[in-house]
Amino acid sequence: MSPDNERRARVALSFLAQPGDLVLGAALRTRTASEVLALVAGADADGQAALADQVADRALESAIQRWRDRLGEVPTRARLAAWQEIGLRLVMPGDSEWPTQLDDLGDARPLLLWVRGTADLRFACLKSVSMVGSRAASGYGNHVAVEMAAVLAEHAVTVVSGGAYGIDASSHRGAMAADGVTVAVLAGGLEFGYPRGHEELFRAIAAHGVLVSECPPGRGPTRPGFLVRNRIIAALSRGIVVVEAALRSGALNSARHARELCRPVMAVPGPVTSEQSAGCHELIRDYGAMCVTCANDVLDHIGGSGGTGGTLRIGPAVPRDMLDPAALAVLEELPLRGGRGPASIAVRAGVDLDTALRCLGLLAAGGFAERCEAGWRARKTV
Amino acid sequence: MSPDNERRARVALSFLAQPGDLVLGAALRTRTASEVLALVAGADADGQAALADQVADRALESAIQRWRDRLGEVPTRARLAAWQEIGLRLVMPGDSEWPTQLDDLGDARPLLLWVRGTADLRFACLKSVSMVGSRAASGYGNHVAVEMAAVLAEHAVTVVSGGAYGIDASSHRGAMAADGVTVAVLAGGLEFGYPRGHEELFRAIAAHGVLVSECPPGRGPTRPGFLVRNRIIAALSRGIVVVEAALRSGALNSARHARELCRPVMAVPGPVTSEQSAGCHELIRDYGAMCVTCANDVLDHIGGSGGTGGTLRIGPAVPRDMLDPAALAVLEELPLRGGRGPASIAVRAGVDLDTALRCLGLLAAGGFAERCEAGWRARKTV
Repeated sequence: MSPDNERRARVALSFLAQPGDLVLGAALRTRTASEVLALVAGADADGQAALADQVADRALESAIQRWRDRLGEVPTRARLAAWQEIGLRLVMPGDSEWPTQLDDLGDARPLLLWVRGTADLRFACLKSVSMVGSRAASGYGNHVAVEMAAVLAEHAVTVVSGGAYGIDASSHRGAMAADGVTVAVLAGGLEFGYPRGHEELFRAIAAHGVLVSECPPGRGPTRPGFLVRNRIIAALSRGIVVVEAALRSGALNSARHARELCRPVMAVPGPVTSEQSAGCHELIRDYGAMCVTCANDVLDHIGGSGGTGGTLRIGPAVPRDMLDPAALAVLEELPLRGGRGPASIAVRAGVDLDTALRCLGLLAAGGFAERCEAGWRARKTV
Repeated sequence: MSPDNERRARVALSFLAQPGDLVLGAALRTRTASEVLALVAGADADGQAALADQVADRALESAIQRWRDRLGEVPTRARLAAWQEIGLRLVMPGDSEWPTQLDDLGDARPLLLWVRGTADLRFACLKSVSMVGSRAASGYGNHVAVEMAAVLAEHAVTVVSGGAYGIDASSHRGAMAADGVTVAVLAGGLEFGYPRGHEELFRAIAAHGVLVSECPPGRGPTRPGFLVRNRIIAALSRGIVVVEAALRSGALNSARHARELCRPVMAVPGPVTSEQSAGCHELIRDYGAMCVTCANDVLDHIGGSGGTGGTLRIGPAVPRDMLDPAALAVLEELPLRGGRGPASIAVRAGVDLDTALRCLGLLAAGGFAERCEAGWRARKTV
């Protein structure tokens, strides 16, 4: 079975099963995607009995029946190519852009991710924090989200959120205002991001970071889809901050996922007279969430640069090992003091200018490099 | 040595030593107050050597020398009587009004307390919470203090505070607004309460509860006196709530005393953009203070009525045992349902009306009785 076949099979399955389908996740522990797809596609009129013999698993058998009904939704190669032409790319387990911390989700690990944007998803999330909260945020909540995200971005921490109105949008905007990288994990497909009112925001995020979804591009978000999506927001980063949340807010669901994944759960307090802070206070009071009042508190909890918290859980122990040869060559040519222009770096590293620029973007997102007045330099802390 | 002599000796010592003097506290573990006073007063010109022989404790010897210099400050009997005539009373360890939880302070236990007001200090503090915070409180902080104190008062919880401007005053006022009992522990003497701007407030507190000080009546508060006073605020109640406090606020000192006394320390969160909440957030974040957003959270932590938290630490296991015969007789005549008027209660209990009213006040402060439309009834929860 060629890797290409396996990729195509995963894409097909992502159009058949719902995101986070645990039966499919369990099946993929012992079978390749191509094998599972063959079970779905392969049955003829008398296939029913044959299938039962083949899978010997009632849950899987019944799931396969369901998936079979949707085989018509699998897109043609031309359709897939068209999506790639409008800037969507597919990232799968094993790809260099795959964020390995998603493997912590076990059988609920996404089959694949659709990604759009200039940043490298894996590098962007190496040092990242998820910031979530109410759509109907208060002026206070939005203010705190913008400030916190901006300071995190100044510390080269990527801000992960859900692209929704309110706290999500303020978090993305705060990160971008400080020229940082931000990742929006959307519940619907990326062909048309949801909410539609955020078209401009999503365009900006694609320019400064990445948009991510496990949903097929054309599909709109569903109510359960938001909750399933939240596990990715929790799993991608080193910890989650609930900035503002009423009781029963969806943001608390993201916090629960983070707790289950052993990621630090943090909450920002607010006036006890504000319903929009009641969920945060509940997290602190009843669920042991850490009370954080500023970005520095957050950095303390996620172990900052050189810290220990979370470092071993996500990404490799020595992130430098993950760099491809071109990026390593570019990194070698970055001075620790002063700076060097991209053209000069490209010549010294023996790569063309486009490659140098791509590598510099990756290195910046990974915390290895930073822009300075004289061009680019290596960061000392990694 | 008669108890009267012992009382007089304690009063005299309270004019010689500073409040919370640990050397005096240690000396009173093995000597009576009269014996210590005799050591202070008894030496003649050659007394120096004799004293060293008698005490065999350098710290005590040097303290006695200091106290000797102040013997002139001990008031005459006439002066003491004058203070009692303006409504001040003395409460000492062993008295029925002495709050036994102050014994948790060990050698720092007050020698005695000056008390003014209609409530019985011991009964009032049986079920009590200390509320403290900034003098320069925000509108938010004052609002929260008033609300929280009022709801605590509605649950028959006495509010203990320090009588200062800001959160202290709002806490006292909230309790009184709900017809509750409140206790103000002042750092200066009660003859003229400090701050002077609170003359009216102190008059109201004396009518609804008690003013308390370990300082001699005529003495003004000193800067260290405020810090020493804070240990009493912490020790009197079942737990402390810091409503609003900047970093380095004196309220945090009270919280530290409470922690040392194993009383629950609670803090009210507020906007992270407010300096007046930074101390509260620090307590929650770094010192394990419990995040409380309303009076019900506080009731949960102090074990409310029928709860366990703190119940055994302060007051006897069966508070009913502490009632004097008249109060017990009155309690016997309180119905559980409906209610009964004071005159009828007095006749049934075989006491005069004044005694019945006094006892009803004590029983209410102790959580045994409550007012209702038809007069008075017994509370079921105790």
